[in-house]
Amino acid sequence: MASCKTQPSFCRGEHTLDVPMELFQLNRDRLCERLRATGNVPAGAIVLLQGGVAETRNDSDHEPLFRQESYFHWAFGVEEPDCYGAIEVDTGNSILFPPKLPESYAVWMGRLLTVDDFKNLYSVNEVHFSDKIAEVLKSKSPSVLLTLHGLNTDSSKYSKEAVFEGIGGFIVNNEILHPEISECRVFKTDFELEVLRYSNKISSAAHIEVMKHVRPGLYEYQAESIFHHYCRYNGGLRNLSYTCICGSGHNGSVLHYGHAGAPNSKKIETGDMCLFDMGAEYNCYASDITCSFPATGHFTADQRGIYEAVLAANRAVMTAVRPGVSWVDMHRLAERVLLEHLVALGVLQGDIDEMIKVRLPAIFMPHGLGHFLGIDTHDCGGYPQGTTRIEEPGLRSLRTVRTLEARMVLTIEPGCYFIDHLLNAALKNAEQRVFIQEEVLRRFRSFGGVRIEDDIAITETGMELLTCVPRTVEEIERVMAEGRLLHQPLPQERTDKQTLS
Amino acid sequence: MASCKTQPSFCRGEHTLDVPMELFQLNRDRLCERLRATGNVPAGAIVLLQGGVAETRNDSDHEPLFRQESYFHWAFGVEEPDCYGAIEVDTGNSILFPPKLPESYAVWMGRLLTVDDFKNLYSVNEVHFSDKIAEVLKSKSPSVLLTLHGLNTDSSKYSKEAVFEGIGGFIVNNEILHPEISECRVFKTDFELEVLRYSNKISSAAHIEVMKHVRPGLYEYQAESIFHHYCRYNGGLRNLSYTCICGSGHNGSVLHYGHAGAPNSKKIETGDMCLFDMGAEYNCYASDITCSFPATGHFTADQRGIYEAVLAANRAVMTAVRPGVSWVDMHRLAERVLLEHLVALGVLQGDIDEMIKVRLPAIFMPHGLGHFLGIDTHDCGGYPQGTTRIEEPGLRSLRTVRTLEARMVLTIEPGCYFIDHLLNAALKNAEQRVFIQEEVLRRFRSFGGVRIEDDIAITETGMELLTCVPRTVEEIERVMAEGRLLHQPLPQERTDKQTLS
Repeated sequence: MASCKTQPSFCRGEHTLDVPMELFQLNRDRLCERLRATGNVPAGAIVLLQGGVAETRNDSDHEPLFRQESYFHWAFGVEEPDCYGAIEVDTGNSILFPPKLPESYAVWMGRLLTVDDFKNLYSVNEVHFSDKIAEVLKSKSPSVLLTLHGLNTDSSKYSKEAVFEGIGGFIVNNEILHPEISECRVFKTDFELEVLRYSNKISSAAHIEVMKHVRPGLYEYQAESIFHHYCRYNGGLRNLSYTCICGSGHNGSVLHYGHAGAPNSKKIETGDMCLFDMGAEYNCYASDITCSFPATGHFTADQRGIYEAVLAANRAVMTAVRPGVSWVDMHRLAERVLLEHLVALGVLQGDIDEMIKVRLPAIFMPHGLGHFLGIDTHDCGGYPQGTTRIEEPGLRSLRTVRTLEARMVLTIEPGCYFIDHLLNAALKNAEQRVFIQEEVLRRFRSFGGVRIEDDIAITETGMELLTCVPRTVEEIERVMAEGRLLHQPLPQERTDKQTLS
Repeated sequence: MASCKTQPSFCRGEHTLDVPMELFQLNRDRLCERLRATGNVPAGAIVLLQGGVAETRNDSDHEPLFRQESYFHWAFGVEEPDCYGAIEVDTGNSILFPPKLPESYAVWMGRLLTVDDFKNLYSVNEVHFSDKIAEVLKSKSPSVLLTLHGLNTDSSKYSKEAVFEGIGGFIVNNEILHPEISECRVFKTDFELEVLRYSNKISSAAHIEVMKHVRPGLYEYQAESIFHHYCRYNGGLRNLSYTCICGSGHNGSVLHYGHAGAPNSKKIETGDMCLFDMGAEYNCYASDITCSFPATGHFTADQRGIYEAVLAANRAVMTAVRPGVSWVDMHRLAERVLLEHLVALGVLQGDIDEMIKVRLPAIFMPHGLGHFLGIDTHDCGGYPQGTTRIEEPGLRSLRTVRTLEARMVLTIEPGCYFIDHLLNAALKNAEQRVFIQEEVLRRFRSFGGVRIEDDIAITETGMELLTCVPRTVEEIERVMAEGRLLHQPLPQERTDKQTLS
């Protein structure tokens, strides 16, 4: 993956990563190999995937920027909407079916790509326009079409199964493909790891840029804007992996802050902790990073206390992860480290094991320790057949309960939040209440939260840290101090508001 | 509309516009008045609108940032998804039905808003959670529920008609509402004009920021990023009105450039004209602005020639628009001015009237002169009952054929493009070919295009220009020269690529 466009590739300029189309070829080959190994797939089977569909906003002709469906991207790396793709399982032969656009579209879309253009662009073996899909597939006399149908355990939604006019003339099996392709996605190739490293590198640098700009008076959405601009402008990461969560002060305790009903619209105040969870994607490969830091650039004693509790949990997990380790055990490890620190801080008192028995940790960290990361921020494969969700507070929110293996990519994101809803419940719960030092807790009621989220890849012997941001209190204070030297007035502080009056 | 949050309002900080909820109250009142005036609406009728629905990307739990459905926004100004809203036509009494979220959502969404919170936030008369919608509406004993069903003439899609469990128990009419509410949206109130002015002011300033940064070597997507960042950071415009079209060189001839298959990914080269069509929205009120300028900051003779041809067409229309004028005539006026200039430049030869008869102008400007602008970039109401599309090249692309009236807001966006697909067709068309100086045309084959797009409001006597960007050749060259003094190295020019290697 060197200089831009020496080969069919995805690239956004000489300063960005060149992603060869070989990445997708290798993914297709891995899938075929895996399918053949199942013993369930007869000779002459063809995998058929349907790509994402172009949509408009409600009744209007406003087209939101299309982003490819994730399984289809994994297999083909195609940027255009409304495609199909097929893979002959015996040979790995790949066939792309882009839509046949009317000739008049050339006025609006530019020169229409030919079959050969698509072939060269995406390095597939065959290209036919999708109006010929039934005919082309018929000519291959497939024993069976393997289509994608399966449950996403994060969303409880089913994947979109490929359909086309004439599919009734084929034998279709929609059960075999989903678990196998999902399992392929869980284990990242060297190619994929390099793209994830790149998304992480740029997103990490963008977090640092934000930290340098934050101070009381900045609006949360202005931080979001700095992040997105840095990623797009400097790294060619046009899309965010998810809507930025830029919670300051009490908003840091709102786990999915930043959505349309809470649009990062608060002004950051002195005394606020900032919890900024932001990531961008390159060629649909995501990063997912959270930094927490004080608005002023200097930690108070309480801020340092909570921050270092979470950092200790984050680092304890990093030290422990390696192939063969259970992710559930890692979650429990993080909980234990967090509780120990909360005892030391005087927020809690009593025996840690007893606290864990009554699920006290889930009051302070109601979400899971982390999740698979890849083309989706919450990547697939967390609960393959044979695994079951653990129905206990905190643990039930885990997005996987698997034993770690090399080439899995995950987030490690312990947090500590002061969520009124949960604290009030705990104070009413006799079993939990006994461990809480109410007087001390009161001091933290408006604190918000701290989350420290890094992206890692499991290696043969341990892990590789993909994220590179300041993490210790000293590192953060140093970077923020550097930022203080660079400041221009914020728009809201300008006295010359001629463009904004 | 003064300082932030002195009243229930939409506001993004003291440097941004405060939009009072009165805006929506007035819209509702106008709608009721209009409905009562039809004579078709019995006493006791209730308007029922369904807001936009929260969605996820394909099977995943990735929630794209929700943006409200446009009719619902016009009537209620509510930011949250999954709501209903009702208006009693006789009295204007307004009822909002937000979704009833499970209590556990407080962990993820923050403190759940109460009925009173919603009432205060959006200044409606009543709030009930939507699980009570059938019951509440029943208690009003409406003579009829007026629901929204009608064709969007830009997209050929139908609006989403409100449905809820139990609607079968009501008399429903889905024909009356759509034309009346669409007609209300065509005419902007003083409140709405002020929001549109604000979106335009910030977006205009962002265009200037982009012009200052453009030079050969910049990637098109970097310009997109500068634009979006400026709007969001400085003005609180979190959403773009549409995907940025940042076409440089030949890409300027691709009318809908910038989409996922052509993602503003070209490097801008010396000799390129840039055609940048970008707008952002505030409280869902859009701007839509195009600037065209040379990458170098200095117009060549040919660039100046084409640019001034389009500018002359733009200004001729501005001088002519006023209430009573036909928009079709304005389109024809722009065509004529453009042709006159193309003759003067030597691209065309012969009689202008004869060229128009054979629809030669549509070779150079295949789109309509402009469109209504408001909550949608292509705002509704272009073809009310009784109007018909003119089925001639160029004119058939007009998004309205109406006679202008005060308080309409439109874009004026003549353009001149060198689109291979259309030029090749014209050269094969004996009737059109005779007017084309092929030798001269050849010089422009890679030119791309020029579009000059301003947003205007029709006043009682003429128009108000909402857009404020440099427009003459001299103004543009001056602003770009100022920009040259500010430059930092581009990411792709840096020698210290430690974060980007």
